[in-house]
Amino acid sequence: MSDVLDLARSLIARASVTPEDAGCQDAIAERLAACGFRIERLDAGEVRNLWATHGEGGPVLVFLGHTDVVPPGPEADWRSPPFVPEIRDGALHGRGAADMKGSVAAFVIALEQLVAAHPDHPGTLALLLTSDEEGDAIDGVRQVAARFAERGERIDWCLVGEPSSKDRLGDVVRIGRRGSLTATVVVHGVQGHVAYPELADNPIHRMLPALQELAARAWDPQPYPDFPPTSLQIANIEGGTGASNVIPGSARVQFNLRYAPSWTSDALIAEIESVFDRHGLRREVHWHRSGEPFHTPEGALRAAVRDAVQAECGIAPDENTGGGTSDGRFVAPLGAEVVELGPRNGSIHKIDEHIALDELECLPRLYRGVAERLLGLGGREARPATGVSR
Amino acid sequence: MSDVLDLARSLIARASVTPEDAGCQDAIAERLAACGFRIERLDAGEVRNLWATHGEGGPVLVFLGHTDVVPPGPEADWRSPPFVPEIRDGALHGRGAADMKGSVAAFVIALEQLVAAHPDHPGTLALLLTSDEEGDAIDGVRQVAARFAERGERIDWCLVGEPSSKDRLGDVVRIGRRGSLTATVVVHGVQGHVAYPELADNPIHRMLPALQELAARAWDPQPYPDFPPTSLQIANIEGGTGASNVIPGSARVQFNLRYAPSWTSDALIAEIESVFDRHGLRREVHWHRSGEPFHTPEGALRAAVRDAVQAECGIAPDENTGGGTSDGRFVAPLGAEVVELGPRNGSIHKIDEHIALDELECLPRLYRGVAERLLGLGGREARPATGVSR
Repeated sequence: MSDVLDLARSLIARASVTPEDAGCQDAIAERLAACGFRIERLDAGEVRNLWATHGEGGPVLVFLGHTDVVPPGPEADWRSPPFVPEIRDGALHGRGAADMKGSVAAFVIALEQLVAAHPDHPGTLALLLTSDEEGDAIDGVRQVAARFAERGERIDWCLVGEPSSKDRLGDVVRIGRRGSLTATVVVHGVQGHVAYPELADNPIHRMLPALQELAARAWDPQPYPDFPPTSLQIANIEGGTGASNVIPGSARVQFNLRYAPSWTSDALIAEIESVFDRHGLRREVHWHRSGEPFHTPEGALRAAVRDAVQAECGIAPDENTGGGTSDGRFVAPLGAEVVELGPRNGSIHKIDEHIALDELECLPRLYRGVAERLLGLGGREARPATGVSR
Repeated sequence: MSDVLDLARSLIARASVTPEDAGCQDAIAERLAACGFRIERLDAGEVRNLWATHGEGGPVLVFLGHTDVVPPGPEADWRSPPFVPEIRDGALHGRGAADMKGSVAAFVIALEQLVAAHPDHPGTLALLLTSDEEGDAIDGVRQVAARFAERGERIDWCLVGEPSSKDRLGDVVRIGRRGSLTATVVVHGVQGHVAYPELADNPIHRMLPALQELAARAWDPQPYPDFPPTSLQIANIEGGTGASNVIPGSARVQFNLRYAPSWTSDALIAEIESVFDRHGLRREVHWHRSGEPFHTPEGALRAAVRDAVQAECGIAPDENTGGGTSDGRFVAPLGAEVVELGPRNGSIHKIDEHIALDELECLPRLYRGVAERLLGLGGREARPATGVSR
């Protein structure tokens, strides 16, 4: 059994349902300490955060990952138990195999190999792990980034191991993420009988024109490079007493925006509140900012990732900003270039989650290749492409 | 104790929660039979319907009422038990006192007095009672009217005893009712993640422009005489999984129209379906027709009611078509003029329902006065106005 497979199996065997870490980080810390990494615990509340560094000063390359996993759902639906790693059909099965214990294991193996081959590498090689990526995401990297900002911790490049790939390893890398903003709105009216509308004030009727305007709007003045269009989607709407002859006294709507860096959450909130004002809505709005957008323009990290993918996978990745949010959003504001590169994501958050063995074996080479290119460590000569899952 | 008070008390003491009659109609039938009325039972299913007539041929004047009542709600909230009639503060209290056992008692007393004073009156005096006005309204007057249509039963004038008055007895009479039509709509889309709107089809967004168009529309080409404007009110709206990041696969909306005789339910349905078509809504619509509108133009019945109110109450009634539906909607299509006149409605369907004693005492005179005027029975000379509750 290879090192990366061995480590991935031992991590999957730890049932670290968010925000549990179940000993994953201690096991990793022990290995990295053994090869010269400095270990710092940055735990907050019940969340475990590990910061492991090797070397001194800049440039600083951070591998970012998480040891927590989403719940397995009904275990009886799994072909093999979710926390008992099993190899079948050329893939390692278990909760977290693809999201993202495979990547975490690959990070560790890559770092061990890097410091073994280049004990006096320039700059700093670092690993940041949290057990709060799949949960509230409050005491995890958000908290760590706040501490880093306070103490002036420098991060030049951050490679996130999230499963970015679609049809084969390396075909997609994320070079940013949209922001996410959620509004929960209660619109007030005056309850009454449908036969006497003049004595009531229908809150559903009140909110329709405003919602229609928001839903139909093209939000970006012009397309933002590398980003899909900013989009507002109404996810929930609710109003009414259940009776067909009663005008309700209030109605509720919840919508989410995924937005390009053409917007900030503050600007969106001001804009939407002004729409509500213009339509005269008596309302209460609760705003939840899930994360500001970030964007990594062309630069050293994107070039290194592209070259490493070309070398190890034989393809040119699609560099985009699709998908949901990731912990990269907390690191980008520290001034870091952030790119996400990991295995295929088709099975994540589902039953029978798995990672193909050839992807898992390739990941340490990919991550090592990125580091070698960024830190000028040699070993960056092009290698023949290896076949990976299609 | 007066006859009308005595009878109203005995009716209230019968707990005839819809569709129960609890013996009310048998007691009334017995009284009317004793003074020469022909009694016909027109029961359907569990609903009791009574048809009592006196005299022969036309013109035919029908007093229309119901013996069922709405449930009392929490009995502990009543100051006196809902089915134990109690007089206090100058009013008779109990469920049904105002809606409409007071009117029913007054109908009976008026009919008894009329046939005693005018045993050979021209035409026909009739009483139609149901125990299904407050409930489904299917096996009650709707059913009876269908039978009457089949057998060619003629009705010239129908006086409904519904509590039409607002601030004092006789200040409002109903000369028609709007139609009522309810649509329950399911709009289909395609479920998806808010981060990938291009892969989903948001049913809430789909239905917004159509709903906005329907809610904002002025429905009547021009005001219909005696009718408030046709109105569409969205009573219930619902869509969403509860999660803020999921576009739901379908959404549901329910709206009700109250409409003037400028519309029929068929015309409204065709119009609204065409709006849905134009907006490309994939939907299922369930239409519920509660009743077509009816309108009694100026004529003998309105004149008789107006004169009687002027004579007994000393005021000129406001003749309008406000409020909900009534069983009058089933009788109007038989070709009858239909007017509703009854006590004040401020306490109906509430706890501590009551009717003022002076209103109750006046009602038999009012109803008798209408009959005398219509059938030319004399005794129609103006009487001095009697004081009633303000």
